[in-house]
Amino acid sequence: MKLDKLAGDRFKEKPSDCVIDSHALMIRGGYMKHMANGIYSQFPPLRRVTAKIENIIREEMDAIGGQEVLFPVTLPASLWEQSGRFQSVGNELVRFKDRNQSNMVLGMTHEEAAVHLVREYGNSYTKYPFMIYQIQTKFRDEARPRAGLIRVREFTMKDAYSFHTSQEDLEAYYEKCYHAYERIFARAGLPEVVVVLSDSGMMGGSISHEYMLLTPVGEDSVVLCGECDYRANMEAAESIVEQDQTLSQAPLELVDTPEKHTIEDVCDYLELPVKNSCKAVVYQRNDDDSYIVLFLRGDLEANETKVKNAVGGKIHTAVITEECGLQAGSIGPYKLEGDYTVLYDNSLKGIANLCCGGNIDGKHYVGLDMQRDLGDVEYGDYAKAVEGGICPCCGKKALRIERGIEIGNIFQLGTKYTKPMNMEYLDKDGNKQVPIMGCYGIGIGRLAASVCEVSHDEYGPIWPITIAPWEVHLCCVRADDEECHAFADKLYGQLMDRRVEVIYDDRSVRAGAMFSDADLLGVPVRVVVSPRNMKEGCVEIVTRDKSVSRKVQLDEAVSAIEELIRELYEDVNARGGVNER
Amino acid sequence: MKLDKLAGDRFKEKPSDCVIDSHALMIRGGYMKHMANGIYSQFPPLRRVTAKIENIIREEMDAIGGQEVLFPVTLPASLWEQSGRFQSVGNELVRFKDRNQSNMVLGMTHEEAAVHLVREYGNSYTKYPFMIYQIQTKFRDEARPRAGLIRVREFTMKDAYSFHTSQEDLEAYYEKCYHAYERIFARAGLPEVVVVLSDSGMMGGSISHEYMLLTPVGEDSVVLCGECDYRANMEAAESIVEQDQTLSQAPLELVDTPEKHTIEDVCDYLELPVKNSCKAVVYQRNDDDSYIVLFLRGDLEANETKVKNAVGGKIHTAVITEECGLQAGSIGPYKLEGDYTVLYDNSLKGIANLCCGGNIDGKHYVGLDMQRDLGDVEYGDYAKAVEGGICPCCGKKALRIERGIEIGNIFQLGTKYTKPMNMEYLDKDGNKQVPIMGCYGIGIGRLAASVCEVSHDEYGPIWPITIAPWEVHLCCVRADDEECHAFADKLYGQLMDRRVEVIYDDRSVRAGAMFSDADLLGVPVRVVVSPRNMKEGCVEIVTRDKSVSRKVQLDEAVSAIEELIRELYEDVNARGGVNER
Repeated sequence: MKLDKLAGDRFKEKPSDCVIDSHALMIRGGYMKHMANGIYSQFPPLRRVTAKIENIIREEMDAIGGQEVLFPVTLPASLWEQSGRFQSVGNELVRFKDRNQSNMVLGMTHEEAAVHLVREYGNSYTKYPFMIYQIQTKFRDEARPRAGLIRVREFTMKDAYSFHTSQEDLEAYYEKCYHAYERIFARAGLPEVVVVLSDSGMMGGSISHEYMLLTPVGEDSVVLCGECDYRANMEAAESIVEQDQTLSQAPLELVDTPEKHTIEDVCDYLELPVKNSCKAVVYQRNDDDSYIVLFLRGDLEANETKVKNAVGGKIHTAVITEECGLQAGSIGPYKLEGDYTVLYDNSLKGIANLCCGGNIDGKHYVGLDMQRDLGDVEYGDYAKAVEGGICPCCGKKALRIERGIEIGNIFQLGTKYTKPMNMEYLDKDGNKQVPIMGCYGIGIGRLAASVCEVSHDEYGPIWPITIAPWEVHLCCVRADDEECHAFADKLYGQLMDRRVEVIYDDRSVRAGAMFSDADLLGVPVRVVVSPRNMKEGCVEIVTRDKSVSRKVQLDEAVSAIEELIRELYEDVNARGGVNER
Repeated sequence: MKLDKLAGDRFKEKPSDCVIDSHALMIRGGYMKHMANGIYSQFPPLRRVTAKIENIIREEMDAIGGQEVLFPVTLPASLWEQSGRFQSVGNELVRFKDRNQSNMVLGMTHEEAAVHLVREYGNSYTKYPFMIYQIQTKFRDEARPRAGLIRVREFTMKDAYSFHTSQEDLEAYYEKCYHAYERIFARAGLPEVVVVLSDSGMMGGSISHEYMLLTPVGEDSVVLCGECDYRANMEAAESIVEQDQTLSQAPLELVDTPEKHTIEDVCDYLELPVKNSCKAVVYQRNDDDSYIVLFLRGDLEANETKVKNAVGGKIHTAVITEECGLQAGSIGPYKLEGDYTVLYDNSLKGIANLCCGGNIDGKHYVGLDMQRDLGDVEYGDYAKAVEGGICPCCGKKALRIERGIEIGNIFQLGTKYTKPMNMEYLDKDGNKQVPIMGCYGIGIGRLAASVCEVSHDEYGPIWPITIAPWEVHLCCVRADDEECHAFADKLYGQLMDRRVEVIYDDRSVRAGAMFSDADLLGVPVRVVVSPRNMKEGCVEIVTRDKSVSRKVQLDEAVSAIEELIRELYEDVNARGGVNER
């Protein structure tokens, strides 16, 4: 199409509300427009990018036997009551009443809908395994939408659901999907995505993985081992702590710590290293506000997800009231009286000579010996892994912590949905069994933004040709030059005839403005027709990433452009090892 | 793909809740599953049909310069307040609050979103005209969803919005879109669609057309002239009545009509033809419940849409209370006292000797002379057109009334949205102007169901090849026959290599079950590999509509199938005159 008819404005100024580059460039480039908090409309260039991503995903899902279906965006609440999620999910789930006062929800994920669709179909073992998927709009009422398309409230997602008769079969299929995802991200131009163990969260189930794009602007923390293949989301990463065995026993003694309320202040005042302390982190359960007190080594951070999983319900940071009996700033495990759930982190196991709260305002103990003073309490893993920490896989002190964007996830769900929703099949022997499920998601818009985030310069996105809005950006510099314009028109027609996707700029603007717009659209192949080039009898072909710059004879322009396009597709696939299917 | 892996069940029994054939067949054929009132999930065969329809629409929209965009499903209420529709639209618009208590709506149409997206872009006359469209989920909380996909609450729609600097330019583009729609319906296998004038309803604007598929199961009434091209939706069809000029004047006289409350009963009792009466139809305004009394000739029916348009607001059938002063069953125009809006239909103009209500229980007047007894009142068109009535276009008594399904609509919106939403552009002379808009909709699922409705037999849908879920249904009858199965496998592989879309049935089921399933899937080309055919050295190729039945040599099977597919595509296009672009 012609650029002068392309809906959307491109401009130079960075919008003040954009904190990451992909967001700023996608606003500046006329890719999208903000409509409400976490809600955007897509202009044609972005719709073209997302359509290409959708098609790559379709091909890879179909290649592993996936069947495309479509679930509704609006779902009856009764379905979510069957799984228990109508109650258990917080206000990120939009609930509304229809005109007949029936409770409805907006689909934020479709496990219930998937089970509903195939509950009757999957009534015999002969039908298994099978996988269905959709590409559909979803709404999650996120508390903090941010970073453009990285975290929004409304988004398009590919969500797939597989059904199996055994855990082994699920695992085999999970493996297939794992590789399909690698192919998808590689084809979209992100071969460097890492796969990490993750916490299953509200989806339930046991094993799950996330596909993480490592970038400083990511909102997730990823734990990676420098010595082996261990990778995990911080939420799921095991924390293994080296114990300080040099601490000798000492008598337990209550000391004054006036006005010292943080463990750092207390240790500083007592002239002790922070790691020789036992600190308290207090949560409350969402459902009854009862208290959970976690004790862990003073230099570590609590991992809220692990605490939540241990107590089996949602929690929040506690509000410590006078009535609750806890002495804020001086909470310690020794002589802690009251009806609290108390958890001890592994970092405290067998340790002596610790400083800890005295459960009296302004008082702390020194000399705490866990075994001697508290007896046989149970320890668990409730701390965050740390930079330079011990790898739970190879045991080496080689953990690294990086930031990442989660661009896909896969879950082994077990029977979390099939069982409460009464999905059953008859096995070979005629016995009723409950099928086992897996689910697999990719956010389309987030993937587009992630590609832009890792592939751009200060002037605009550098789209991989596989998902670029167009393949060729044809610039007719000096549209007022008749010969020039005539040749560009002809070339445009020839490329269109060859089904090359071309955006054609023949506006009467100066070359600078033309190239700025081209940079913002990020199309991989730029073809420049100009009076100077015409005089030399050639056109200039350059790639957006500047790796290729060629001058070719006018009559060879079409074939040279097609050849370069082919090379670029091959490059993307080769970098991702995609031709090995 | 292989049929034994296709998600969804096919069965023989007609579901009891299906009143139209397309609904029953799409349930029986495993196309969709009911989830809630007017909400369905789509199984793979339907998703494949809708995907093909979407692609046809994309091609035709792109061909008239359309640019695909994407608007959100969830919209901030503030946008609908700008246009006034947050208040004016009834409870078919779902309103909900997000977690921050902001008012939101579910998009049922996207005029506001379209203006929001291009408000800044369209700031200069040089950008015009342009058209943007999306294919997206919508939700309308219909009071009475019915007939499967014909009237649902959640649906996928293509909605397009064009922007212009003059009414002439809008009309020129409207004409282009009019023809694009004809091509879309023809390519989808519905060349017989008629275009009718329609009422603009809640969309506003002046001129609008609907694309109607005439079928007895349609829920709209369409008025067509047998002598000229006049076609209109009943809601919009002008009513022209032949006056009975033979009625002579008579004195006005109050007579007893005991226990007679309908105009038919009164006329029967008084031994008068119903057309010699003046009846009353009473409405109330939705906003203040004030009364509207319409008088029209006794044999005609009131057209509620025309009354609504005349009073400029929503109305409903009146509840006549004792306090309101109206005498139910005896309401007449003579000496009607009270604060009502009174309307007179053209059918009463200049007529004498009518019977009408006496505004006293059990009393009617005879001999009413409109001019003599009521003076110079204003008359308007408030009646429904009738079968055999006078055509407002050619004047002949040739009106026919048929039922139709509305499968598309196009509207000239004027400045109904651009003006209140402050969209402006600078014209050539630097003056601010408000752009003029058109909008153009097609419901994807309804179109699929409509095709099925006019193209099926008792055994299943007969899909046109352009939108069929697959092009070829390959049946291996007697999969236990090794030679047979081996040849079918080979043929399947060859067709897949040639990128033919094949559904392959090699289940060990009897031929009857195999063919029943094939009928329900409605794939246009059926290829039968059987031991009997193998013995003759051939395969059987038949079309779903039975118009073609060929036996071809085994080694010619692939080319014969490809040839037949080509013919079928050409047939659809030829019937719709599509190759004339």
